[in-house]
Amino acid sequence: MPDKIQPRTLKGFRDYLPAAMIPREWLVDTARRVYRSYGFSPIDTPALEYLEILTGKGSDETDKQLYRFADHGGRDVGLRFDLTVPLARFAAQHIQELGTPFKRYHIANVWRGENTQRGRYREFMQCDFDTIGTESISADIEMVLVVHDLFSAIGIEQFTIHGNNRRVLNGLLEKLGLVEQSTSVLRALDKLAKAGAEVVAQELATTAGASDSQVRDIMKLASLSGDNNQILAQLEPLLSGSETGERGLTELSEISNAIAAVGVPSERFRIDVGIARGLDYYTGTVLETFLDDLPGIGSVCSGGRYDNLAEVYTKEHLPGVGASLGLDRLLSALEELGTLEKTSTPAPVFLPFFDADRRNEYLRLAAQLRAAGIGVEFFPEPKKLGKQLQFADRRGFRVALIMGADEFAAGQCQVKDLSSGGSTTASTSDDAAAVIAEILQILKA
Amino acid sequence: MPDKIQPRTLKGFRDYLPAAMIPREWLVDTARRVYRSYGFSPIDTPALEYLEILTGKGSDETDKQLYRFADHGGRDVGLRFDLTVPLARFAAQHIQELGTPFKRYHIANVWRGENTQRGRYREFMQCDFDTIGTESISADIEMVLVVHDLFSAIGIEQFTIHGNNRRVLNGLLEKLGLVEQSTSVLRALDKLAKAGAEVVAQELATTAGASDSQVRDIMKLASLSGDNNQILAQLEPLLSGSETGERGLTELSEISNAIAAVGVPSERFRIDVGIARGLDYYTGTVLETFLDDLPGIGSVCSGGRYDNLAEVYTKEHLPGVGASLGLDRLLSALEELGTLEKTSTPAPVFLPFFDADRRNEYLRLAAQLRAAGIGVEFFPEPKKLGKQLQFADRRGFRVALIMGADEFAAGQCQVKDLSSGGSTTASTSDDAAAVIAEILQILKA
Repeated sequence: MPDKIQPRTLKGFRDYLPAAMIPREWLVDTARRVYRSYGFSPIDTPALEYLEILTGKGSDETDKQLYRFADHGGRDVGLRFDLTVPLARFAAQHIQELGTPFKRYHIANVWRGENTQRGRYREFMQCDFDTIGTESISADIEMVLVVHDLFSAIGIEQFTIHGNNRRVLNGLLEKLGLVEQSTSVLRALDKLAKAGAEVVAQELATTAGASDSQVRDIMKLASLSGDNNQILAQLEPLLSGSETGERGLTELSEISNAIAAVGVPSERFRIDVGIARGLDYYTGTVLETFLDDLPGIGSVCSGGRYDNLAEVYTKEHLPGVGASLGLDRLLSALEELGTLEKTSTPAPVFLPFFDADRRNEYLRLAAQLRAAGIGVEFFPEPKKLGKQLQFADRRGFRVALIMGADEFAAGQCQVKDLSSGGSTTASTSDDAAAVIAEILQILKA
Repeated sequence: MPDKIQPRTLKGFRDYLPAAMIPREWLVDTARRVYRSYGFSPIDTPALEYLEILTGKGSDETDKQLYRFADHGGRDVGLRFDLTVPLARFAAQHIQELGTPFKRYHIANVWRGENTQRGRYREFMQCDFDTIGTESISADIEMVLVVHDLFSAIGIEQFTIHGNNRRVLNGLLEKLGLVEQSTSVLRALDKLAKAGAEVVAQELATTAGASDSQVRDIMKLASLSGDNNQILAQLEPLLSGSETGERGLTELSEISNAIAAVGVPSERFRIDVGIARGLDYYTGTVLETFLDDLPGIGSVCSGGRYDNLAEVYTKEHLPGVGASLGLDRLLSALEELGTLEKTSTPAPVFLPFFDADRRNEYLRLAAQLRAAGIGVEFFPEPKKLGKQLQFADRRGFRVALIMGADEFAAGQCQVKDLSSGGSTTASTSDDAAAVIAEILQILKA
């Protein structure tokens, strides 16, 4: 036998053990269920793409982080670093067959050779949904509704979707004669939530070269307050006369009205003109989502509308709107909020192997419970009961079914609630139905 | 604007459009549900591993097919080519923390630079489940039960799990004095189902150098017939005196008895001594699963028991047993059998945008249906109804809800069954409840 190879993962990569993977699967399932309920369809694309596809529209930063190599056929290839570039390539290639509007979700891993010192991972999962091929505001409204339904389904009660429209910002810059400096103005404005008004005002003056009165006008945005209608009313005079700005305002107001009409509580969607979301990509609606109890972690779901998804690959004009759920960030948040159940097993019921001669009877009972929709793990070896219950405790089962010689003789079963420690006796004579009823009652409690 | 980059995928890779992805997600979901019902937990491992991890136990063939390169830090890395090597590395690294028995499932993509002329893909999904750290036959029995439940849950009624035990084969070779030639004997025997008895007999004589009487004795295995108990009875004299063979026989008989006791129909599990499943890896139970209506596609779920999973990485002895579902093969089989629903949308209900002034009312109705658990896609633009229904038809929706000015005025809604073409009128006055009831009735039909 040669020397052992040290079992280890690459820096920036990680294993998901059951205790981490069970919540991730649940979160992905929840996102999928919500996306699907709106008619978003799943797609998948290859992890490996031609290098020219991936570098076609990426930034210098993503280019540098690309995992790239030559494949067996000598082709230059790379691992995808996001799901947007593959979506653009996919849409350019298949949109004739798919037809528009095309609504897709895509939940898959991406890879970036990032600096791990910033706590980043080099492999992580993205969870995107987009509507391609329509400019209708209906799709923007739906994006907000999807985000709302998503966080409600996750069980988060306190969250706020901050919405804005790039046209509102552009209109303001137009009116102020700051279009040329828009990049630095928006970059400064982006810091509003984190750095505060003073820092932003100073940066506007120095980096963007805005005059005192321009700074004052921009900073008015930071002092808008009240409900959405009040904010819209305050924006109106600031934008009147700018076609772009007025259109942005109309769009924001249509979204705000629509989601109120649908019954979304008004505190869940807040018009926030401080949200700019990057610089080049978005052209209309933009949104970020914050957890009220953990604002410091930043946005956990962000997105917006863009004009032309696939221009690098096709002449076809493909506008779109969509958002991306920050899975990893949200998982740590849920852990911090203590809302994740701690378990390393997806089956709620543990069935110890107690009476060595009765394996087939245990197996039959387990099969009956599964047929009734109750997951059961049967311990494979007739070890001491104490050891088996230790195992069950470590795994986080909800219920154990104790059946020994006495119980078999009496046609009974002890149903042990592993969280309360309480125990009830159920009859097994009637085809396990009584046990099932007993377990369901405990699981519901 | 520079020249367009041609949108294309690499040879051997493919996009999954919704029509292909929806059944794949459903199949993966079904497998997960069954695995979880037995207490198998999800895990995940990185797509990229240190090259030495991947080449540690692979064969020359897998080594040749490995996607390998140097990463940004100059490390030699590779894309995983299966989920077994990562499981071995994972178990060696974490088994102290996880404890045994450890039951995991892992559903993820793997990559092999295969020759695509054989119709193989270079990226494909594996769907494995394994129990690590126990030698108990309970785990072997459970593997068979999982496979049975899996195919039942998929809705396949005619399938047969062919089970064997490597100890039975080894015992026979022992008794025949053919242990030295076991590799070529098993390789010949593996061809029984495909090539027939004559070819196998000839190969045994030539390649394995078996004598006439040895060939005759081996070929007896091919002529065993009857139910499992009858086959076991016929095997007994062939193996008596070989400890290995007798142990294999006992194990096979325990499995056969247990699954009969659980109530699995006897025709679903067939003892088949022609199943050898590769050569080095398996040490006890082996199984392959065939669809009775499509035997030609080969096994769609295969697995078995192995002695020492992680010996390349750790001194810890980790026996295990598990199987792998052939997702791609099964998906083509289901398509060939015509059991897959043809749809490109996961939402059953289509809501056309008919009356341009009532967007928010449509959105509210859609939200009410979703709250009742019914997926709805709302068309984002008030196009001509005919165009919208064409779209719905192409996507494969089950039901369309037609609401125009007349319907709104009357507080009604036309519920159109898109498969039958029939239409019913439902009241929308009572909070959409009547519409929901009507839709559910149509969806159930």
